Amino acid sequence: MGGGAELPQRGREKRELLLFTPPHSEGEIDDLINEIKEEFPNLDVEFSQVAPDGKSEVPKELYQRATYLTTFNWLPPNAAAAPNLKFIQFLSAGVNHVAKHPIYTDSKIPLLSANGIHGPQIAEWVIMMFLNHSHKFVPLYEQQKQRLWNPATGKNVTDSPGKTVGILGYGSIGRQVARVAKAMGMKVLAYTASPRPTPESRRDDGFIVPGTGDPDGSFPSAWYNGLDKENLHEFLSQKIDLLVLAVPLTKSTTHFLSTPEFHLLNKSNPAGTYIANISRGQVIDQPKLIEALEEKLISGAALDVTDPEPLPKEDPLWEAPNVLVTPHVSGSSTVYAQRATQVLQQNLRRLRDGGRLINEVDREKGY
Amino acid sequence: MGGGAELPQRGREKRELLLFTPPHSEGEIDDLINEIKEEFPNLDVEFSQVAPDGKSEVPKELYQRATYLTTFNWLPPNAAAAPNLKFIQFLSAGVNHVAKHPIYTDSKIPLLSANGIHGPQIAEWVIMMFLNHSHKFVPLYEQQKQRLWNPATGKNVTDSPGKTVGILGYGSIGRQVARVAKAMGMKVLAYTASPRPTPESRRDDGFIVPGTGDPDGSFPSAWYNGLDKENLHEFLSQKIDLLVLAVPLTKSTTHFLSTPEFHLLNKSNPAGTYIANISRGQVIDQPKLIEALEEKLISGAALDVTDPEPLPKEDPLWEAPNVLVTPHVSGSSTVYAQRATQVLQQNLRRLRDGGRLINEVDREKGY
Repeated sequence: MGGGAELPQRGREKRELLLFTPPHSEGEIDDLINEIKEEFPNLDVEFSQVAPDGKSEVPKELYQRATYLTTFNWLPPNAAAAPNLKFIQFLSAGVNHVAKHPIYTDSKIPLLSANGIHGPQIAEWVIMMFLNHSHKFVPLYEQQKQRLWNPATGKNVTDSPGKTVGILGYGSIGRQVARVAKAMGMKVLAYTASPRPTPESRRDDGFIVPGTGDPDGSFPSAWYNGLDKENLHEFLSQKIDLLVLAVPLTKSTTHFLSTPEFHLLNKSNPAGTYIANISRGQVIDQPKLIEALEEKLISGAALDVTDPEPLPKEDPLWEAPNVLVTPHVSGSSTVYAQRATQVLQQNLRRLRDGGRLINEVDREKGY
Repeated sequence: MGGGAELPQRGREKRELLLFTPPHSEGEIDDLINEIKEEFPNLDVEFSQVAPDGKSEVPKELYQRATYLTTFNWLPPNAAAAPNLKFIQFLSAGVNHVAKHPIYTDSKIPLLSANGIHGPQIAEWVIMMFLNHSHKFVPLYEQQKQRLWNPATGKNVTDSPGKTVGILGYGSIGRQVARVAKAMGMKVLAYTASPRPTPESRRDDGFIVPGTGDPDGSFPSAWYNGLDKENLHEFLSQKIDLLVLAVPLTKSTTHFLSTPEFHLLNKSNPAGTYIANISRGQVIDQPKLIEALEEKLISGAALDVTDPEPLPKEDPLWEAPNVLVTPHVSGSSTVYAQRATQVLQQNLRRLRDGGRLINEVDREKGY
């Protein structure tokens, strides 16, 4: 039994610490955490819940020891204070909210986003809105409330086979829209900022919820690109039935769609393009959108984002023809924390197996 | 020029006649008819529009000469009156409405249904309703009407990856639901009346709208079968999130779902199964469904069919909790005639190429 006292010591030397500092209680991820513990038996896991603004005290002893940090916005004061960190896994899709923190500006600790976890729920919001429009759900629902059985209200429905979806911004959300639209028999057109001429360039190398998305970029029948109006206009002239806006908001994409673009859509598809915006409100010139809807240049619009937010009560957008507005909720999901923990799990595996970490933020680009 | 007068004669001998007797004007199929004429240069096409009840006079000269007849419910008086007919392509999914006609009872002219053309639009109705439920569309829409921006209304949305769809009746509609649900990351369970143990038995040999459905039966992760309660109950115990009813109404499937079945669903999935019925109202014991909804044994129901139809104004189903009712419209589509004409086109090709006709009705079985 002489050596027995030392064994636990040796065991402790090899142990690593995964520190979670979530802004809310994470009960839903117990199963996943247990899975991770089983897969990584030398990993201790500690939780320290922080306030939503991230301004809480986390015990110094924890972040000094931590090998991995999983957090929404709380960070140790600087890299020196957490000398053992191998990476920081964020629970958010972006990390702009910590871009001025010393760990971002002055360290090289890999910062990993949770980008990709919103694909399914936002894609489903898009498909739901498109189907509600084409299958006349709102008038059918209003009729039900009046206890009226009038089949005529559901006539002239158009279904999706042979229709075209154009996806402006072919990231994790756009790719999942593509997967579902393709399954519905639709033709997929992708639009990206930079050219994607090779199979390699069309791949999605970030986190993908298993069983979803377009990992190889195989769904689009054609790819378009550019941030200039000329390329945009060529894309908008492809007789698009459903136009999905999923581009980041930048100087180039501000008011990306305005009167000339609505006219182009109408010229190529007089039956009327349906627009779904899950990007940012400012991507559309909103007063011009209302005009386009009133003039029937497009058939309708589903907007989860508006300009501004919250949309003021007196804004005419609320009652523009064929508009559905939701209050920036398409990314909400009860499994948010579970998905983010799946990204963490994949990154722990990548590090163990010597692979490339996924969703590593390029500090220059900011994403 | 001596032989010139004979050439048209020879040409006429080889010519065939496709006779259309639709109950409404078929302007939307002009493009397809032109395609068919181009592909079959010896085919003449004649239209003779009939009344919706099929009781019109069609010129005898036409049906005497006709090689192919495309019809909804009009038929020549008997087989002898149309001696050249090689097949009759119906524009309807079923042919029960002519089951007592001499051509059905006393001839062997192949009768071809348009079964399969409803897959896409009805599957889209199912997916739309499921998404509206899980993504809380109705409360969000009601909020928009009040010009309220309240994101809390859209919280606790559950999206689809990892959920299970159980499809009772794996025909053309169920298969297209499966395709879309699979693309949404869901697990698919199929239920059929008779066993499907081999790859061959799982195929769909009927008409399939191109790019849709499950031709090889490859989407389900498990197959169940039977018309008895024991097998049904095993299926209902698989923790189903979306249960799609797409079985034909027969003695066995009348009140297929009632209180015991709702309890089983609840036991296996306490979070609540969502039921979509696009079969016939009588497949569900409707008063018991209302009870199950009130007791929250299931999370909701979308019903395009009711018992009876039209649903009387005073029926409590209209306002049962989490119920969406539409007036038997899920099969409506502006491209109905186009799809039916595609079936005809495929059958003309099959006959020319010596293949098996698709959608041939088994006169014994009646479908």
